[in-house]
Amino acid sequence: MKTLIKNGTILTTTGEIKADILVDGEQIAAIGKDLQGPFDKEIDAAGKYVFPGGVDNHAHFEALNTDGKTTNAGYETTWCTLLGGTTTIVDFCTNEPGMSLCESIDYRINTRAKGRVSPDFALHACCVDYRGEESLAEVEKLVEMGVPTMKLFLAYKGTALYMDDTKLLAFMKEARKHGMTMMVHAENPDVLDDARDSAAAEGHYEPKYHYMTRPQWGEAESVSKAVRFATATGCPLCVVHVSCEEAGEVIKEARAKGAPVMGETCPHYLVLDPHLMDNPDWKQAVHWICSPPLREEPDREYLWKALNNDTLSILGSDNSSIPQYQKEWGFDEELGCVDFRKVPNGCPGAPDRLNVCWSYGVAKGKMTKEKFVEINMEYPAKVNGLYPRKGTIQVGSDADIVIFDPEYRGTWSLESNPNGLTYQPYEGCEQIGRAETVLLRGKVVVDDAKYVGQPGDGQFIPGKPYGMAYDLLEK
Amino acid sequence: MKTLIKNGTILTTTGEIKADILVDGEQIAAIGKDLQGPFDKEIDAAGKYVFPGGVDNHAHFEALNTDGKTTNAGYETTWCTLLGGTTTIVDFCTNEPGMSLCESIDYRINTRAKGRVSPDFALHACCVDYRGEESLAEVEKLVEMGVPTMKLFLAYKGTALYMDDTKLLAFMKEARKHGMTMMVHAENPDVLDDARDSAAAEGHYEPKYHYMTRPQWGEAESVSKAVRFATATGCPLCVVHVSCEEAGEVIKEARAKGAPVMGETCPHYLVLDPHLMDNPDWKQAVHWICSPPLREEPDREYLWKALNNDTLSILGSDNSSIPQYQKEWGFDEELGCVDFRKVPNGCPGAPDRLNVCWSYGVAKGKMTKEKFVEINMEYPAKVNGLYPRKGTIQVGSDADIVIFDPEYRGTWSLESNPNGLTYQPYEGCEQIGRAETVLLRGKVVVDDAKYVGQPGDGQFIPGKPYGMAYDLLEK
Amino acid sequence: MKTLIKNGTILTTTGEIKADILVDGEQIAAIGKDLQGPFDKEIDAAGKYVFPGGVDNHAHFEALNTDGKTTNAGYETTWCTLLGGTTTIVDFCTNEPGMSLCESIDYRINTRAKGRVSPDFALHACCVDYRGEESLAEVEKLVEMGVPTMKLFLAYKGTALYMDDTKLLAFMKEARKHGMTMMVHAENPDVLDDARDSAAAEGHYEPKYHYMTRPQWGEAESVSKAVRFATATGCPLCVVHVSCEEAGEVIKEARAKGAPVMGETCPHYLVLDPHLMDNPDWKQAVHWICSPPLREEPDREYLWKALNNDTLSILGSDNSSIPQYQKEWGFDEELGCVDFRKVPNGCPGAPDRLNVCWSYGVAKGKMTKEKFVEINMEYPAKVNGLYPRKGTIQVGSDADIVIFDPEYRGTWSLESNPNGLTYQPYEGCEQIGRAETVLLRGKVVVDDAKYVGQPGDGQFIPGKPYGMAYDLLEK
Amino acid sequence: MKTLIKNGTILTTTGEIKADILVDGEQIAAIGKDLQGPFDKEIDAAGKYVFPGGVDNHAHFEALNTDGKTTNAGYETTWCTLLGGTTTIVDFCTNEPGMSLCESIDYRINTRAKGRVSPDFALHACCVDYRGEESLAEVEKLVEMGVPTMKLFLAYKGTALYMDDTKLLAFMKEARKHGMTMMVHAENPDVLDDARDSAAAEGHYEPKYHYMTRPQWGEAESVSKAVRFATATGCPLCVVHVSCEEAGEVIKEARAKGAPVMGETCPHYLVLDPHLMDNPDWKQAVHWICSPPLREEPDREYLWKALNNDTLSILGSDNSSIPQYQKEWGFDEELGCVDFRKVPNGCPGAPDRLNVCWSYGVAKGKMTKEKFVEINMEYPAKVNGLYPRKGTIQVGSDADIVIFDPEYRGTWSLESNPNGLTYQPYEGCEQIGRAETVLLRGKVVVDDAKYVGQPGDGQFIPGKPYGMAYDLLEK
Repeated sequence: MKTLIKNGTILTTTGEIKADILVDGEQIAAIGKDLQGPFDKEIDAAGKYVFPGGVDNHAHFEALNTDGKTTNAGYETTWCTLLGGTTTIVDFCTNEPGMSLCESIDYRINTRAKGRVSPDFALHACCVDYRGEESLAEVEKLVEMGVPTMKLFLAYKGTALYMDDTKLLAFMKEARKHGMTMMVHAENPDVLDDARDSAAAEGHYEPKYHYMTRPQWGEAESVSKAVRFATATGCPLCVVHVSCEEAGEVIKEARAKGAPVMGETCPHYLVLDPHLMDNPDWKQAVHWICSPPLREEPDREYLWKALNNDTLSILGSDNSSIPQYQKEWGFDEELGCVDFRKVPNGCPGAPDRLNVCWSYGVAKGKMTKEKFVEINMEYPAKVNGLYPRKGTIQVGSDADIVIFDPEYRGTWSLESNPNGLTYQPYEGCEQIGRAETVLLRGKVVVDDAKYVGQPGDGQFIPGKPYGMAYDLLEK
Repeated sequence: MKTLIKNGTILTTTGEIKADILVDGEQIAAIGKDLQGPFDKEIDAAGKYVFPGGVDNHAHFEALNTDGKTTNAGYETTWCTLLGGTTTIVDFCTNEPGMSLCESIDYRINTRAKGRVSPDFALHACCVDYRGEESLAEVEKLVEMGVPTMKLFLAYKGTALYMDDTKLLAFMKEARKHGMTMMVHAENPDVLDDARDSAAAEGHYEPKYHYMTRPQWGEAESVSKAVRFATATGCPLCVVHVSCEEAGEVIKEARAKGAPVMGETCPHYLVLDPHLMDNPDWKQAVHWICSPPLREEPDREYLWKALNNDTLSILGSDNSSIPQYQKEWGFDEELGCVDFRKVPNGCPGAPDRLNVCWSYGVAKGKMTKEKFVEINMEYPAKVNGLYPRKGTIQVGSDADIVIFDPEYRGTWSLESNPNGLTYQPYEGCEQIGRAETVLLRGKVVVDDAKYVGQPGDGQFIPGKPYGMAYDLLEK
Repeated sequence: MKTLIKNGTILTTTGEIKADILVDGEQIAAIGKDLQGPFDKEIDAAGKYVFPGGVDNHAHFEALNTDGKTTNAGYETTWCTLLGGTTTIVDFCTNEPGMSLCESIDYRINTRAKGRVSPDFALHACCVDYRGEESLAEVEKLVEMGVPTMKLFLAYKGTALYMDDTKLLAFMKEARKHGMTMMVHAENPDVLDDARDSAAAEGHYEPKYHYMTRPQWGEAESVSKAVRFATATGCPLCVVHVSCEEAGEVIKEARAKGAPVMGETCPHYLVLDPHLMDNPDWKQAVHWICSPPLREEPDREYLWKALNNDTLSILGSDNSSIPQYQKEWGFDEELGCVDFRKVPNGCPGAPDRLNVCWSYGVAKGKMTKEKFVEINMEYPAKVNGLYPRKGTIQVGSDADIVIFDPEYRGTWSLESNPNGLTYQPYEGCEQIGRAETVLLRGKVVVDDAKYVGQPGDGQFIPGKPYGMAYDLLEK
Repeated sequence: MKTLIKNGTILTTTGEIKADILVDGEQIAAIGKDLQGPFDKEIDAAGKYVFPGGVDNHAHFEALNTDGKTTNAGYETTWCTLLGGTTTIVDFCTNEPGMSLCESIDYRINTRAKGRVSPDFALHACCVDYRGEESLAEVEKLVEMGVPTMKLFLAYKGTALYMDDTKLLAFMKEARKHGMTMMVHAENPDVLDDARDSAAAEGHYEPKYHYMTRPQWGEAESVSKAVRFATATGCPLCVVHVSCEEAGEVIKEARAKGAPVMGETCPHYLVLDPHLMDNPDWKQAVHWICSPPLREEPDREYLWKALNNDTLSILGSDNSSIPQYQKEWGFDEELGCVDFRKVPNGCPGAPDRLNVCWSYGVAKGKMTKEKFVEINMEYPAKVNGLYPRKGTIQVGSDADIVIFDPEYRGTWSLESNPNGLTYQPYEGCEQIGRAETVLLRGKVVVDDAKYVGQPGDGQFIPGKPYGMAYDLLEK
């Protein structure tokens, strides 16, 4: 099957190219002027931008609660990400009850995900059941299985997610040996618990106390610790979902000193206002409860700059598509009202990531198109060892291609931007541009901005070790 | 009782003054040229330097083990500090078994110390039995009792000493309200435990593994955390016993940004070599086991510079005069050898502090006499709210006066430099200069370099809140 | 002649002392409690602060124009500084026409100043007639003559004042050899000329174009150059009249890196608004034309902080008491209006310096009394090699003493705050506190806030080399 | 004419691609797997790397002396650069005697260079005859002529090359308006002259005094000035031939603060030792006299790191192919010996640049292949507005292609590495890899490592304004 995408303008991290693209089977076979047929199919991309399918470094689908039940929407909703131009997600795999990480990875790929995922996917291992040497010994095997990244939670003390310094250090030393890259959710739990418990002690349970009790310095302190661990162990680090200047500056200073550290931020930290949580209807307000919390405008503006000046290198969605009924677990029967501490944390966003970045970044002159491709495709693919198979339009790469109409104008709604849930955090936002056609390994899965693929189109894509953050180690 | 000290050269933090000093009772009554009598006593200080009695920010005497038994030498050995020119020590008060901090302070002053202490003394409160609100409520009372400083251990996880971030944060917020200054022993316990346990797991128990398993970055990481807590809470902080460049640089950068942070180092970090612990005779080697550990020369040289450029502001002894038999608790019966992990940590040094600083600093041209007075007298007195009663030679201050013979030459030994123990960590070091006469509140307690005072000469000196570190808060 | 100052509160750089001061002849003979007589004279300082007479690092009196004629007010107006509490000024000595610097110094001390100066004075050499080796050879002799400081102008290109990099470098290398401290007026002349010539080319001649055409970065660039020269040559540097954050930050960063650099600012940069130059009456507006120019509030606030955090170390007046008729030389006959480029630069301020600093700093809680004494007395005396003879109240020092009434309230006017001119730049400002009695070397020269001294009371005070800035060189 | 390059591995700034390249006429028409013919010519690149032809940001050919006579080798020697894999040079155009810059550009393109240049070329304007408004008015026209860059000399005071701050400022302000990028040779002439004149005064004339009298701080000071001018005017700046850490750190700090500043270094600063100038045969020693001078190893190692961490962004040759007889102008008849001050400054290097970078960087593991392409092709093309026509292998770009044999081993000699002169500064160095085939706009000009092209193959390539350094301006 040969497909020709013609007349488009290809966007790369170094500029624009006017050229046709020949897809042969699942790969890109050629890029050229006036490529000659015969072709099985031609797509006219005149007036459109053509860029690599998005790679989302950070997506939680079908997550497991600490009681082993799944939370978040299931894989059947992942088709929405294709509509948003993202063709590869890096999902998380925590320990299934009673299973090792390797077993859990295997179970997730071959059982949970089997026939259910729409985009391609890779996995971060995420230990929630640390068993010392036994867990450490898994690092090498994970890398061999195509999982060269691990995510650890430095927050949520008191839950299975929490990894203390001993565990963090042990994993980082081991990861370094095998080319694994460490990712961390960095918030100092004691600092945050102090604030949230004080608020609750004073009778404040409303959703807005979520953002009022997660001070920036609690995030920065934890980032600072993780950065020092990375420097000391030599284990490359990616700090995910950086939400504020104070944390960003820690990363900036570390990078200036040569530390092997990268940072990610997320679309909601760029554009959404924390005061959305002031909504008196608590069932609405809880939609924006995520951690770290949304921040005020100065932090949001800082993050745009941080992406532009290479302080932060990746835009990940941190997609947590939590159904409304789960959000409402936040209601406390005893109190007779919502308790922000009990609301599951997380915002959806994998389908919205590229559109937010384009609409509020590229289209507003706050970001170049080159940077757009870099932070949304190339760098996430490189950090996860998926490049150049994913994250670039070049000969030999998977034909994951977005044909993007920059002229589209719309307004965010569940209808225009489905996410598998019954609410849309960006509801009412202005949208500029959208994916019109999307190919996944050569197959058209979005056509005329409508999903035309099938569950199970997506495959597990093994990552290679020694991802991009390893390049920061001194030569 | 009027005493005239005549013909001396007074050293101050701003220079030298050739003048006589008239002591009337316990205070300095006048400083002048050719002061006229009659006087009860005259001391000729011709050819000598006259400076304020040393104030030691950091001395552990008659400490309590976590089982409530005392460790370290008792107060009866404190006369040695007078011989070394130190007239005020700031000792520590941990919780007596079953007592609150306030009760413990009272017990220490009025029972333990009663009639037994030779120099004057103040106290740092040191919580080892945190009881939430009950403990926090003590902060205000401690300040009222004349204890405006608290020392917390961020190291030694798994013991009662250890204070986690929740407790640190709670105490700092409370301290800020009442003008209390926070001091911390900053070493990340998980980082250190990882290293020491790895060493032990590989069969390494010798004393030298003490310094080999306490990496600088473990210290720096903890300092970094404490500094951020100080900045966030506004609670002024003094990081005690900074031992290395990596930790010092954290303080330097914080101060440059305006953080209310000060640092202390100790004489042993300035001059003693960690390879002393390589001594094959373990009963000797253990003498130098203290935490943080002794460091190699580059760190030692850094510390001299750090004192000179105001990165570090105080020289404290961290005196822990641990008797030989206690040091030997490090012998592990089961292993049949010493286990560095079981050796009580600490070096004596209160009697040696000024002599080390003069011999290796002032006499070698590495430190000015002004700086000597600043870091050993003025600043420790100010940080602890004891100034100008202590730490300066000026009219109205306590007549704590050292008449120092800069021509003296000697070699460190237990005889020349007693410390109440049977070993002397500075044994064999070259000494230049020594205190010839020392007055404590007007009373001659050292005469002709011999102790002539009596147990109980020393009094508890209440400190005032809002010590020097509060001056760093932005006006 | 013995004078007792009793019941006062002495202010020092380290705190306050309640004690009497005995003056015997020209020096302080004793400081004590209840000093006993007989005394020739007693001054009751109850309720008053007693501090050392001010030392002004930077005063231009009886300056020479490049044509050899004097500008600024003459020495006969220096009595006003005593009224303002300043007992020592460091004046400037440029080359007298046809004379070497050494000859000019001699001429100034023994001819110009003879019998005409009211306060004591020291001198900065200021080369305006560079003759290569001949000039360099004077450095050693100047030091021997008691002039251990030199001031060079890096601005005013095209005039005799201007010293290019070749001359600056040559002088700094020579100065380093002999313990001389270099001071610079740092503004990049090309940057400023570009702006002023552009303004003039567009027909803008009003006084306000003075401040509009001297951008901060022109100052910072020149400071940056001077700092690098200091670092490279090892010649300690004092950057005078720092006016803005951008220049201050250069000094702050240099000091953090260990450069032998200090900075001075002036009272007018702390409190006066550049919009005073917007006054439509040009004969008024020109009063505030000085260089660097007055800056907007953010820079003014920065300077207060810079003094408090030791970025800047000295408050000097940069007194240039330019008579009204000289200011009016700015009128351009051809243009028929004032031309800001022709107005002599400079503001008076030596008599106002301490009052401004106290009224707007100490009395407003923006500066401690300790810092007040440090930047106005101790540090300027030390930098100029005059300490401890000047700049401190201690036994053996010159009895230059201010008895200051903190309760005084007034409004700045020529009557209350004479400066020898017919205008007062601080006119209308609120004054808090004033010198009530001033002694110069034991002689009362201000009594009941009135000048009671005589021309010629002042003496030349030779400075010692290797002043305070040399302490910044690494040991 | 269609040419297929098959079986090669294409190197890009983001990785490697195994694909064929179809050249159609002068451009790249397609990149693909198994591209199908018919083709006029096939080149088998199996086992070879294929990368874009080098773009040399900095080449002096047929330069003009200040007396209007040409120095350096003429354009007829430029074929050597093709042999070294460089297909585009950015040459310099100073004022021809009596001509404006625009006239000189026209004259150089259409008369001097006509039919004589082998590689393609662009031009930097270089003013040596500043005529105020007249010169400034040329900026806009130069941009229109395809010359969007200007190089100014901040060194060489006393010659026509020297541009003082007034001229620098005026040009930068004008350049900013029209999208021109400023380049500077940054060395403080007064600092250097002082050192060199001192050396000469002491009778030192040997070549080695060249490097002994150009201290790093003289370079850093000038860079520091230029950086501040760039920040203040907003005019993007490229500091050429950065030779040392002290200067590099200025750039690093500036970039961290967001200044629009980039830096270039040169191959000789990376690998050549200054002690080559110690050669007792002065006719040899003078070969390495260039400015800034070669530096010792720590600076050389710093530069490798600076390229890797994006402190410096471009490797330019600063090619100055000065014939032996011109180098010998350094002989002083009067002295009867060489005088280092009279030796024309400059080293050849345009033909050697890529080989040095590959042999000592890529082949030694000190630089990635991606970085090699970035600093030698992509970034120089982007800074000069030549991208994507030059500097990349992508569809639509000029078919300037190097087929590089990484297996080649050789030793630098005039024969293997001709440069149009009679000496080779890298003589005897070890070479790893070389260009085997080079295409210039589709024409094979190097075949089997031999030049097969013709004078006049090269064309003037106009650059576009708002080059890469403009991207650093805040969005």
